Amino acid sequence: MDLISYMQQTGKAAREAAAVLAAASTAAKDAALLATAGALAEDRAALLSANASDMARGREKQLQPALLDRLELTPSRFDAMLTGLEQVAKLPDPVGQVDDLRFMPSGIQVGRMRVPLGVIGIIYESRPNVTIDAASLCLKSGNASILRGGSEALASNQAIGRCIARGLAQAGLPEAAIQVLETPDREAVGQLVRMAEYVDVIVPRGGKGLIERISREAEVPVIKHLDGNCHVYVAAAADQEMARAIALNAKTQRYGTCNTMESLLVDAEVAAQFLPALAGDLAAAGVELRGCEQTLALVNGVVPAEESDWYEEYLAPVLAVRVVAGLDEAIRHINRYGSRHTDAIVTRDHSAAMRFLREVDSSSVMINASTRFADGFEYGLGAEIGISTDKLHARGPVGLEGLTSQKYVVFGEGQTRQ
Amino acid sequence: MDLISYMQQTGKAAREAAAVLAAASTAAKDAALLATAGALAEDRAALLSANASDMARGREKQLQPALLDRLELTPSRFDAMLTGLEQVAKLPDPVGQVDDLRFMPSGIQVGRMRVPLGVIGIIYESRPNVTIDAASLCLKSGNASILRGGSEALASNQAIGRCIARGLAQAGLPEAAIQVLETPDREAVGQLVRMAEYVDVIVPRGGKGLIERISREAEVPVIKHLDGNCHVYVAAAADQEMARAIALNAKTQRYGTCNTMESLLVDAEVAAQFLPALAGDLAAAGVELRGCEQTLALVNGVVPAEESDWYEEYLAPVLAVRVVAGLDEAIRHINRYGSRHTDAIVTRDHSAAMRFLREVDSSSVMINASTRFADGFEYGLGAEIGISTDKLHARGPVGLEGLTSQKYVVFGEGQTRQ
Repeated sequence: MDLISYMQQTGKAAREAAAVLAAASTAAKDAALLATAGALAEDRAALLSANASDMARGREKQLQPALLDRLELTPSRFDAMLTGLEQVAKLPDPVGQVDDLRFMPSGIQVGRMRVPLGVIGIIYESRPNVTIDAASLCLKSGNASILRGGSEALASNQAIGRCIARGLAQAGLPEAAIQVLETPDREAVGQLVRMAEYVDVIVPRGGKGLIERISREAEVPVIKHLDGNCHVYVAAAADQEMARAIALNAKTQRYGTCNTMESLLVDAEVAAQFLPALAGDLAAAGVELRGCEQTLALVNGVVPAEESDWYEEYLAPVLAVRVVAGLDEAIRHINRYGSRHTDAIVTRDHSAAMRFLREVDSSSVMINASTRFADGFEYGLGAEIGISTDKLHARGPVGLEGLTSQKYVVFGEGQTRQ
Repeated sequence: MDLISYMQQTGKAAREAAAVLAAASTAAKDAALLATAGALAEDRAALLSANASDMARGREKQLQPALLDRLELTPSRFDAMLTGLEQVAKLPDPVGQVDDLRFMPSGIQVGRMRVPLGVIGIIYESRPNVTIDAASLCLKSGNASILRGGSEALASNQAIGRCIARGLAQAGLPEAAIQVLETPDREAVGQLVRMAEYVDVIVPRGGKGLIERISREAEVPVIKHLDGNCHVYVAAAADQEMARAIALNAKTQRYGTCNTMESLLVDAEVAAQFLPALAGDLAAAGVELRGCEQTLALVNGVVPAEESDWYEEYLAPVLAVRVVAGLDEAIRHINRYGSRHTDAIVTRDHSAAMRFLREVDSSSVMINASTRFADGFEYGLGAEIGISTDKLHARGPVGLEGLTSQKYVVFGEGQTRQ
């Protein structure tokens, strides 16, 4: 079969399965999740061997070590897939929840019911465990999914897909509810993001390059996660010990995550006291500082920052540091140079904290906490399919609720409009 | 100034004003709405004269009577603009509302705060009163707006725009918070929908042609309202008197609205009893019926329906009628041929009603009520900027809340991530 026919057939099957899934009971969906965990456990040896063959092919092709690391299904990653399925099965089902049901003057009762989006396309890179993470969240939220992993993980993803198919069948749900694409052809992605008839939303998971390319090509709406250029602003009224602990945690707890601090703003009133102390902590952790002129005057060994540094997501032990004149300048800096991901203020001043909370236009805004908390698990969503830096629909960590929308429901007793 | 520079300057000014508006107090926004109503009342004579000149030019150009009708600012439409401004001023301010604030195991408190989308572009056709409707909803929800009305209403819209500017100035808000485009150049629309740097969402209001064209060209997300091919399904267990009243109201109360019934589905068990009675009512109202074979066998004078009739939004005294074998076939028909706008079931059977509610994939789904209720006012939103047939973000009537989104807010006391 040619690629276009294959993708059209996949899309059509997903659309049909979506209608069944939207009406499926919570019990059936949870049974499918647990049966998939059972199938994975049964096939453990076969799965690890499929993954070993992907790894061997990857080494032959001289893939980068970081990529090979992500590709590997270690025993702990394998177990995490099983635990993940069990956890998603335990989460409350968002589908069918009715909110704000109220009587209107006409006598009709109007509310909003949470419903699946329909068919979700997930495009991701080398990690085979994303296949299970993404599939389980789509299934629990009543959506059919089409999964497209990296070509380097094809054997692993196919083996996982066979376990999912058994799990669905055991629960009496259609196999097309979760489809793992079987072709390594890159043009499959191009088809997937343009099948607006069959696909309702695309969730890309991966590097910025992948996401930008998909957003450009897509005719289907994309829930996207671009940069995480996160800020901590140490205000004049900050508890300085608290500010040191938060800044150090936000920068150094992990360097490669999107909620890591990349720029530090310090109020001019406290910079002379605060910056040298923090710089010592950061130097001990091996973090390079790139600072504005005022920072250079206060701390030794700082590299002069260029305009481009204020925009940068380093994902590395590097931090841009700027001294600002006060709250207004801090907010302006963040809204101008930031990426609308996660930004925090450290202060004891209630009014300043509340103004920062309201006026910083980011998907997560924090008072006296580390930016590293911006995460679906830490926010109590139970799981996350990604973090959205968009403004429409879902902002910030996207869990089950972000994979649904609300329709209006009306209960009448024969009312007609006058 | 050339068009591109003019549009860029407009967009930049809107973006700057949006930051001010996002932080503006409810009192300031309400004061601007009431001051605009005052300015309109003061300028009544000048406004009606500007509108008269648009009407005269329209007649010269031999615009269609329906278009001229929409263009005219009658005294009652003028008064409705003032009342509308007062009503929007009275609505609760959605901005800053915090929901679901909860403590997490880490000790941080996480909630979601409602915030404006930013800059909204509104593209509409001949009705000058839309200028006030749209501007007032954008302002109250804390969004800057760029308004682009039809070229035939240019003088009216300019005159209204001057009143809005005075209202904003009196309340101390930036004039660029609401900008009425001053050029009749059609390419201004093309620019507006592609200025992703300055515009966050486009809301087109008008015919399907306008909306399709804008959706095709837009690089900015569009909240769109396409067809309203609405259904009423009369189930076997319907109260037949109720079903007759609802069907008659849904079809004949107004023919040209998007929530008017365009297709009627009748359960085969009751078709022989129900259809002839309803057909009499509809014939008396002058409605043409286009029916399936079973309908033709039951009612005289019905035109045979073609496949295309099931897709049709007639916006006219025409109704497609189909006899279906039961609930499953009704749901399948609606999800296949419908436009996901508004669909209703008439039945006394609770299980059938609840299945219909859940499984019909439309922005409004109703039990025992006329489809004509699908409307922001009838739903208690206080006002509506349009009705969305999209699945992401907002579905159904879009009021103030649909012009906002939710960001995460985190309150900590120095927590860091372990």
